[in-house]
Amino acid sequence: MAEIIAKGAESIPDIEVRLRSVDEASKEDILWCNGLAVGSPTNLGTVSWRMKKWWDDIGFEVWRQLDGKIGCAFSSSGAHGGGGEHTCQALKTILMNFGILVFGVPDYVAPKTAPHYGAICAVEPISNSDQAMCFRLGQRLSEWVAVYFDGNQNLHPINSNYERGPIWE
Amino acid sequence: MAEIIAKGAESIPDIEVRLRSVDEASKEDILWCNGLAVGSPTNLGTVSWRMKKWWDDIGFEVWRQLDGKIGCAFSSSGAHGGGGEHTCQALKTILMNFGILVFGVPDYVAPKTAPHYGAICAVEPISNSDQAMCFRLGQRLSEWVAVYFDGNQNLHPINSNYERGPIWE
Amino acid sequence: MAEIIAKGAESIPDIEVRLRSVDEASKEDILWCNGLAVGSPTNLGTVSWRMKKWWDDIGFEVWRQLDGKIGCAFSSSGAHGGGGEHTCQALKTILMNFGILVFGVPDYVAPKTAPHYGAICAVEPISNSDQAMCFRLGQRLSEWVAVYFDGNQNLHPINSNYERGPIWE
Amino acid sequence: MAEIIAKGAESIPDIEVRLRSVDEASKEDILWCNGLAVGSPTNLGTVSWRMKKWWDDIGFEVWRQLDGKIGCAFSSSGAHGGGGEHTCQALKTILMNFGILVFGVPDYVAPKTAPHYGAICAVEPISNSDQAMCFRLGQRLSEWVAVYFDGNQNLHPINSNYERGPIWE
Repeated sequence: MAEIIAKGAESIPDIEVRLRSVDEASKEDILWCNGLAVGSPTNLGTVSWRMKKWWDDIGFEVWRQLDGKIGCAFSSSGAHGGGGEHTCQALKTILMNFGILVFGVPDYVAPKTAPHYGAICAVEPISNSDQAMCFRLGQRLSEWVAVYFDGNQNLHPINSNYERGPIWE
Repeated sequence: MAEIIAKGAESIPDIEVRLRSVDEASKEDILWCNGLAVGSPTNLGTVSWRMKKWWDDIGFEVWRQLDGKIGCAFSSSGAHGGGGEHTCQALKTILMNFGILVFGVPDYVAPKTAPHYGAICAVEPISNSDQAMCFRLGQRLSEWVAVYFDGNQNLHPINSNYERGPIWE
Repeated sequence: MAEIIAKGAESIPDIEVRLRSVDEASKEDILWCNGLAVGSPTNLGTVSWRMKKWWDDIGFEVWRQLDGKIGCAFSSSGAHGGGGEHTCQALKTILMNFGILVFGVPDYVAPKTAPHYGAICAVEPISNSDQAMCFRLGQRLSEWVAVYFDGNQNLHPINSNYERGPIWE
Repeated sequence: MAEIIAKGAESIPDIEVRLRSVDEASKEDILWCNGLAVGSPTNLGTVSWRMKKWWDDIGFEVWRQLDGKIGCAFSSSGAHGGGGEHTCQALKTILMNFGILVFGVPDYVAPKTAPHYGAICAVEPISNSDQAMCFRLGQRLSEWVAVYFDGNQNLHPINSNYERGPIWE
């Protein structure tokens, strides 16, 4: 999922993307970015302990330095109905704790497919609709960074001409 | 979804089921039952105002009379990733406010399909997996009622011999 | 709470504030604003049906016109531990459904008092700490509007010189 | 908090209580109990990584062996409004993943104090109201175990004669 989200993020002009696993991500990375998409497997309906540990460990060090960044969440779970939305919610809760502005995506990206509260998929993002969900999340993240950090109103979703749905069939 | 959940609930011996729309359900119904599955369309990521109004209206009247009943939740939304889990969460929050014990279903009922926090589906429960999700939720509700209200330990899920998963492919 | 939040919002230069009850608020209001603080009493652990109805009624009309606004939430409940955070969560979920960016406030505003996920208080905001919670939420909302809509980086919380905590005693 | 909850749990006749830190708790403990109160500090608005790791590590081993136990949650956070309810919600989400029935307490235990979704307190449970919240949560847990596992209907909260509120002043 992270790789597809990164591609979506890179699809917006003048946006630089870093793709980091939880083992690689550093304090410098989190301070560097203007926006971030944070993902975790859904483990028991919420964030994996590894991802949580990353934030718990770095928390005090970066507190009051992340305010106003823009964030979103993604998760793969074992099943539809398996807690992916809850995991995204927990991730956004972590981000909000730092003063990060979080968002979902009102768009439909395929029939009956919408990353309203983050991108979620069952097991791996194999289907076109799962991949579209991830791509759009990354794209939207970069759009918000472009609009709010780079002042590029042209990239505001309201001005977009791509399909945003709803798509129910 | 409600109709399929009702069928699942009725599949357990000696369980009487009432199927009620939000317009039909009465104070007498809610006091009568030992267990309940409450559903709402996902509207903006949470419970519809009509369902909420039902509970807000009846709240004070039934307070301290619902403690210890067993409850669960279901929701249809416009899309996968569209807020169905959040709506189930809000419904369970309402139930917990009354002292109702709420549950999810750890089982997998079809490949990559699990009503871990309630039954959710995109638009209508047309697919076999969506229907299996609903049926199992109703079945489990009746199993808990059988175990905890009727003292029928044979029906405890731990003693069941049906497939409970996980089913990942 | 709304009145104190409005005062906090007005404390930031060049910010115009409209204070609206759920009965007064119009489609024009919601389209007009750049940022919004939405509140509801905690009724059964989530949004009141009246507030939900407002959003359900106006939903389709304003969809794709609210993207990128900045939002936050507040709630009064009958008790500490009474569901105020859950109500704020539900309100933010509604806002995210429209593509609104939502935030909490990492600051402590009084001993053991922090609007991390919105402003909450038990019954009425009588205490200084409850009032400080509300004021800071409104202030932060206006700060984000100033930074991201008016390009006023001076008002970024990172550049602020007021007390942000933590305050544990 | 755990100690006071344990006292509340022990206040019900014929209930045996084990008090375990996350470092001490074993697979045998979790299989042994009929009911459990799980607590975590609120770290960034959700469960600490240590508590999450405990469940992640033991998850597959105990899956399908915890169904039907009765559970609840508690958390201390740095502040009122600091995420305690969210942490209890995450803990209950973990429990539901295993098929555990979870509950809140509709009672008021002191003025403006109610463990509706678990017991929460800011920093330490020093005040009488914080302590009452914890005690009642443990008491209720044991009451449900007494009713549903030991068949002791006398202990059903509906039959109780202690103060249950609401207490608004």
